[in-house]
Amino acid sequence: MSAPPSDSRQSVSGLGEPGQRLAVCPGSFDPLTVGHVAIIARGLRLFDRVIVAVSVNIRKQPLFSFEERTTMIREAFDNDPRLQVEALSGLLATWARDRGAVAILRGLRAAADFEYELQMAQMNRHLHPEVDTVFLPSDPGVSYVSSSLVKEVAALGGDVRGLVPPNVHAALMGRLGTRTP
Amino acid sequence: MSAPPSDSRQSVSGLGEPGQRLAVCPGSFDPLTVGHVAIIARGLRLFDRVIVAVSVNIRKQPLFSFEERTTMIREAFDNDPRLQVEALSGLLATWARDRGAVAILRGLRAAADFEYELQMAQMNRHLHPEVDTVFLPSDPGVSYVSSSLVKEVAALGGDVRGLVPPNVHAALMGRLGTRTP
Amino acid sequence: MSAPPSDSRQSVSGLGEPGQRLAVCPGSFDPLTVGHVAIIARGLRLFDRVIVAVSVNIRKQPLFSFEERTTMIREAFDNDPRLQVEALSGLLATWARDRGAVAILRGLRAAADFEYELQMAQMNRHLHPEVDTVFLPSDPGVSYVSSSLVKEVAALGGDVRGLVPPNVHAALMGRLGTRTP
Amino acid sequence: MSAPPSDSRQSVSGLGEPGQRLAVCPGSFDPLTVGHVAIIARGLRLFDRVIVAVSVNIRKQPLFSFEERTTMIREAFDNDPRLQVEALSGLLATWARDRGAVAILRGLRAAADFEYELQMAQMNRHLHPEVDTVFLPSDPGVSYVSSSLVKEVAALGGDVRGLVPPNVHAALMGRLGTRTP
Amino acid sequence: MSAPPSDSRQSVSGLGEPGQRLAVCPGSFDPLTVGHVAIIARGLRLFDRVIVAVSVNIRKQPLFSFEERTTMIREAFDNDPRLQVEALSGLLATWARDRGAVAILRGLRAAADFEYELQMAQMNRHLHPEVDTVFLPSDPGVSYVSSSLVKEVAALGGDVRGLVPPNVHAALMGRLGTRTP
Amino acid sequence: MSAPPSDSRQSVSGLGEPGQRLAVCPGSFDPLTVGHVAIIARGLRLFDRVIVAVSVNIRKQPLFSFEERTTMIREAFDNDPRLQVEALSGLLATWARDRGAVAILRGLRAAADFEYELQMAQMNRHLHPEVDTVFLPSDPGVSYVSSSLVKEVAALGGDVRGLVPPNVHAALMGRLGTRTP
Repeated sequence: MSAPPSDSRQSVSGLGEPGQRLAVCPGSFDPLTVGHVAIIARGLRLFDRVIVAVSVNIRKQPLFSFEERTTMIREAFDNDPRLQVEALSGLLATWARDRGAVAILRGLRAAADFEYELQMAQMNRHLHPEVDTVFLPSDPGVSYVSSSLVKEVAALGGDVRGLVPPNVHAALMGRLGTRTP
Repeated sequence: MSAPPSDSRQSVSGLGEPGQRLAVCPGSFDPLTVGHVAIIARGLRLFDRVIVAVSVNIRKQPLFSFEERTTMIREAFDNDPRLQVEALSGLLATWARDRGAVAILRGLRAAADFEYELQMAQMNRHLHPEVDTVFLPSDPGVSYVSSSLVKEVAALGGDVRGLVPPNVHAALMGRLGTRTP
Repeated sequence: MSAPPSDSRQSVSGLGEPGQRLAVCPGSFDPLTVGHVAIIARGLRLFDRVIVAVSVNIRKQPLFSFEERTTMIREAFDNDPRLQVEALSGLLATWARDRGAVAILRGLRAAADFEYELQMAQMNRHLHPEVDTVFLPSDPGVSYVSSSLVKEVAALGGDVRGLVPPNVHAALMGRLGTRTP
Repeated sequence: MSAPPSDSRQSVSGLGEPGQRLAVCPGSFDPLTVGHVAIIARGLRLFDRVIVAVSVNIRKQPLFSFEERTTMIREAFDNDPRLQVEALSGLLATWARDRGAVAILRGLRAAADFEYELQMAQMNRHLHPEVDTVFLPSDPGVSYVSSSLVKEVAALGGDVRGLVPPNVHAALMGRLGTRTP
Repeated sequence: MSAPPSDSRQSVSGLGEPGQRLAVCPGSFDPLTVGHVAIIARGLRLFDRVIVAVSVNIRKQPLFSFEERTTMIREAFDNDPRLQVEALSGLLATWARDRGAVAILRGLRAAADFEYELQMAQMNRHLHPEVDTVFLPSDPGVSYVSSSLVKEVAALGGDVRGLVPPNVHAALMGRLGTRTP
Repeated sequence: MSAPPSDSRQSVSGLGEPGQRLAVCPGSFDPLTVGHVAIIARGLRLFDRVIVAVSVNIRKQPLFSFEERTTMIREAFDNDPRLQVEALSGLLATWARDRGAVAILRGLRAAADFEYELQMAQMNRHLHPEVDTVFLPSDPGVSYVSSSLVKEVAALGGDVRGLVPPNVHAALMGRLGTRTP
């Protein structure tokens, strides 16, 4: 009787086709944490492929280069062929649409995260409604872990094992050891 | 180098297989609103099939029977074969796992929603980690629409056209007209 | 050049006319607290007249009757002729519109209040856009005072002087003394 | 019986007089968005006059000069004589008091906004209790629109029509076209 | 030079004396969860003695009697002599003051908890400023665990081992087995 | 029956011993506000000694030197021998552990504070579980007072008496008078 919303039916050029669903997981990943690993792994169960979109902000000096971050992410997932890592440029929503993604994947740790993420998701859907934003609630045990806090703690000599994957921990120790001899 | 989390690889009996991904969308749907319609429609783009799990709480007297709610949901989606409607019984996480769902789908309207939903999602993942919870941010234009507020407004004579699908609006007018002559 | 929003110009039958602006301040006021007094007093500076809309919920057994609450509010404002007290019936937005109000006035004490109040305000504006909702932030010293908490504390023998106006305090002591001899 | 709060009665030199009520609406307006337009338009219905107080922060390099912003605001309201645009200097509360304003007008989009705004409102009332702060809840459809997000999206080539008034859109395209050829 | 706040100096009849500091930890504990255990254990490190104040609400039908709850709490702490369990009656703040407590101890799991707890804490300090309220942030791994959710999950057959102490788990299985044969 | 959590029993080298309990109260205190004074005073009632840990961030140019801030804090507490003031260096959790503290003391003013503070507290407990974090809810009347807002208001000529202790007010006037002749 009442017509369904038109976007529940057709799909444009592969978007939303069974077996081809792609999600984009954006972030700085400077460095990858166990929180990121959990979100990406959950994305690989929910979707057919995941592209990790590494933002490369020329104004901020990262701890690890884009190439280092890419290598660490690939290693942490044992080069899973369903996972790609790319540098994000331009508008995230357009970038995701151009790759045929059905979803932008974001982890949510706390209510404060949610409000910022909601604003971004609504803007992204305004720009390209065919790309949805999907929020995954963080695992309770890692809700306090963020890249910036991990870097701050590690730089001051705190033990961050368990908060980042083992390969990232090794890289972090090498990098910070160089800086703080 | 570092081993990936084991759950990113194998899948148990069809869970997470391409082309077979199923999401469960739980709620009371008493009645279906335009907010619900948007979430279900988005679920049908992200997943291969969606089961709407209608909770039937014997302690609460609903406005519409389970059969009426089922009919209204099916009508609103023009009997889309990828959409099923079932009565939820027992634990949601177990119910979803038993149907082979990869995800429980929930709309998020506001930060206050988020905190309650996060608690439920973390409990559900504790019970059955193979069923994830996926949050979709509400469309900004309908963030204030809920079934209970719609019923309250309609019962007091307010105009709720546009807040529910047309078939639900007709049913609501019929039901409330009977009650408040 | 660009046309202004049409509702910034004309006004319908006295709504928004200088010297005639009316605000409605809804609530249960069971009983009036110092927080309510502050909000109503501020409303009387911002608008020409204020109607206190006392909700009379037949399902809830109030501590004070509508007549008692009305008397206490009038007394607390020394029968200020710019303040009226009426029983609210039906939809608040329609009720306010019918009285020619330009605004519904609500105090905001905390972020949790805000989310519920935002939902109600957006629904009310959906129903009758000509009646706005205006939020006034609570005074910091009384942000923890609510009618229900005051009643609970007073019923258990706690001292609530200073949390309600003197006439309400006297009435509260009389009423609770009757109940808990 | 109980004396009313003294500030509900007298008013100092025109503050709060019928027909003369003035509200100040502060912000950067770099640039004006449809969210700002809605708040100012609602202010013009609630009060007799509105002064838009454009903050001119010498530390931040704006996209548009104070003069450009002023022109865009006046144009968007078709030079409504009840609307003035001025540069804000010094303390907002003192500035508003000196102009005889009864209220500072702020739009609230989300709970996160609210906490910051509540702090500022309580400080402003501490400084000058005769100037109140009035919050207007944002329209649900534009709750994700902010000047900074609009600039960021437009600079990356995203379509922001509908998020700003037409005259601002034209100016934005001209300005960013100059910058990103 | 400037005088310190007077309440930082003297203490009334043992309140705040070294070696005698007592905290009250209120709740329903129907039943005790691992979240409660963690908060009480942390209280025993921060204070010299802890009284668990079990609220006995005659309007709500608890799953376990006051005696059963008391036994389970004592058992979980191996009858630690520094821990007492008592039935709470009347106003919490007065009850705590009468026992010479310096603090009321509350776990905080989420921002939504915080707002309610802040209101109660400010009221309690208004009533008896000599009894402070101390919030302990929940351990991240158990932030989703509450007595009511544990009961709901267990009643529907979900596995709640690890969410309550072993003795409580045994009691819960016995009680719910009786009810749902 | 069930074993209690091991950390509720033994204590390591004086941590948690009656009569020796020490809390660390960290912050910038640039300058000390009445909100800080209240939290420190309450800490002195709950614990045997308090160390104020003044963070000295070399990237931020403070208004007052570490020595000036130290003097102002000591003066405000009349050189109470149970209060020490030290410069914080390195990781707060390690610094507190090294001094034998049982607790890190933080004031909470609003829900937005809470989320950031919860993240820091959970990280600090991950690093050194033997040092707890204790939150004290702010007094309602000063919930809007922060050092940065006080400085901003004072620099623009606003009256901040009552928001800082008298000795800090004098120092603030002297310092800002020098800057803004």
